Amino acid sequence: MTITLGHGSGGRLSHELTQQHFLPRFSNAALSALTDAAVLRVGELGELALTTDGYVVTPRFFPGGDLGRLAVSGTVNDLAMVGAEPIALTAGFILEEGLALAELDRIVDSMAATAREAGVSVVAGDTKVVARGACDGVFITTSGLGKISAGFRPDPSKARPGDAVLLSGTMADHGMAVMACREGLRLEGDLRSDVAPVIDLVRALVRAGVDVHTLRDPTRGGVAQSLLEIATSASVEVVLDQRSLPIRAPVAAACELFGIDPLYVANEGKLIAFVPESQAATALAALRAHPLGQSATVIGHVQAADEPGVLLETPLGARRVIRMPLGELLPRIC
Amino acid sequence: MTITLGHGSGGRLSHELTQQHFLPRFSNAALSALTDAAVLRVGELGELALTTDGYVVTPRFFPGGDLGRLAVSGTVNDLAMVGAEPIALTAGFILEEGLALAELDRIVDSMAATAREAGVSVVAGDTKVVARGACDGVFITTSGLGKISAGFRPDPSKARPGDAVLLSGTMADHGMAVMACREGLRLEGDLRSDVAPVIDLVRALVRAGVDVHTLRDPTRGGVAQSLLEIATSASVEVVLDQRSLPIRAPVAAACELFGIDPLYVANEGKLIAFVPESQAATALAALRAHPLGQSATVIGHVQAADEPGVLLETPLGARRVIRMPLGELLPRIC
Repeated sequence: MTITLGHGSGGRLSHELTQQHFLPRFSNAALSALTDAAVLRVGELGELALTTDGYVVTPRFFPGGDLGRLAVSGTVNDLAMVGAEPIALTAGFILEEGLALAELDRIVDSMAATAREAGVSVVAGDTKVVARGACDGVFITTSGLGKISAGFRPDPSKARPGDAVLLSGTMADHGMAVMACREGLRLEGDLRSDVAPVIDLVRALVRAGVDVHTLRDPTRGGVAQSLLEIATSASVEVVLDQRSLPIRAPVAAACELFGIDPLYVANEGKLIAFVPESQAATALAALRAHPLGQSATVIGHVQAADEPGVLLETPLGARRVIRMPLGELLPRIC
Repeated sequence: MTITLGHGSGGRLSHELTQQHFLPRFSNAALSALTDAAVLRVGELGELALTTDGYVVTPRFFPGGDLGRLAVSGTVNDLAMVGAEPIALTAGFILEEGLALAELDRIVDSMAATAREAGVSVVAGDTKVVARGACDGVFITTSGLGKISAGFRPDPSKARPGDAVLLSGTMADHGMAVMACREGLRLEGDLRSDVAPVIDLVRALVRAGVDVHTLRDPTRGGVAQSLLEIATSASVEVVLDQRSLPIRAPVAAACELFGIDPLYVANEGKLIAFVPESQAATALAALRAHPLGQSATVIGHVQAADEPGVLLETPLGARRVIRMPLGELLPRIC
């Protein structure tokens, strides 16, 4: 058995790698929860959140963002999804001999700017250099430490029947922007990545007093994969309303061209929120008041079910079962 | 200007990359301290330590250790050097398509075993897979979170005239073991890496009540580089006694064969401690009582100086100035 690109996809192969190879070996409760960030109760310190992610996107610069912005946004967002306020980030660089120093500078500038945008600092770092050909330019692994306040603790297991499912904006922008850039396609209209820290959207929900049950940033595997994991964790069924799924016209066109379902495509500046139906309007208003959440909408609801899963309801009333993809749709998207 | 292997060496080029390209962009006090781990005062939480390191050693399995053991030991040791007790680790894997799953399992087993040895858990992880040829097998970036107790806060700037400089064991074992393994040399005697978490040695010093001024694990750049950084940070002069520098005979022979000064070679299971002269005997006894510290010895002392630096005193009484190496002696040693 060897590693395939699918093992890094966030799909079924990733899931199996985690379940069968990592979890039994590192066996501990914080890891096994498989939340976006591990939540640690540290004696008198209260609850801290800790997370790490590697970033290997190619190309390193794409419309709407770059590797550096991605490396900070992704990690800040993982903290935000467990309800943590970021305390600090670390960045580990693996550089290929021969990389232009000016390119590294641009990436680091972008990391620093994005960190400022999220209100956090990069407090520790490391640089390794490998010989020409031993890595592809620049890989960054960003870790994040956050503090969880008492009283705000969203978790995938807390989704429950009666919840409304909100998406903070349009789907598939990041994945299709990277894909189109990689393939050198000049598509009608603008394909731009949505990469951004969404912590301000979470802060807005908290300020509005919304009882947020579950948060998730739909990155690798897209909205479909995120909802499948939440449904499984909470043992509920999520019903999506196909008509309400927000997608920009050029993104929809690109998905059609590539034959890719936008539900499975990575987003890097969006969040999914599960909130009680009665608070959906308040939550929507809070999200829409922020530039990153202007296109926020309710995309579905949660119902009780014998078997957890995700259903897509078409305009004609048909229901399609959404499944976990086996492997990789778009390698090296993040 | 392009990145060279020397930028990852821990030597002068690394120093310049950090000082001129990273620090001005990420500008913050915790990072600029350039300690093994960043020390953060987090409101009512007290002091936390946060650190990250990438591990790209080749070969991944070598006498005395492997990539997994290195990836846990290195990060635990960075926490230990600022006086922190590890709370949790994270691990980010970048895997090459085609890697044998059985090899990954061995590495992860070794990480888990080493984490148990240090009394810490890996609570969060991430896996990215890149196409064949886009990385060299497995890269691991390990981050660590630790808690600093009131009253124990070693720091490079705290070294002071009158301190004794202790080394917890023999020099250059890791670097020469990897080097010999890489070159396929069968040298007389055993060349084995010393890679190990040294947190228990720090705990022993604390239990013995030693007023430790400064701790450092002499990894990339070796004992020389570590002492140079401490001397600069504390504005003192370190005088090493060449006769007292502990080195195993086969390691000395290998260094001679390769024409490498063992003072500059990486160690991965050693610590340097600066303690008041009056407590040197207590500190030595505490270190020697532990299997990892049996060969601990006093290697030098600190004196006041107009210009900070490191001097090596030869058996004949001559004094040689130790300088920072420009670049890479042994690439991909860690």
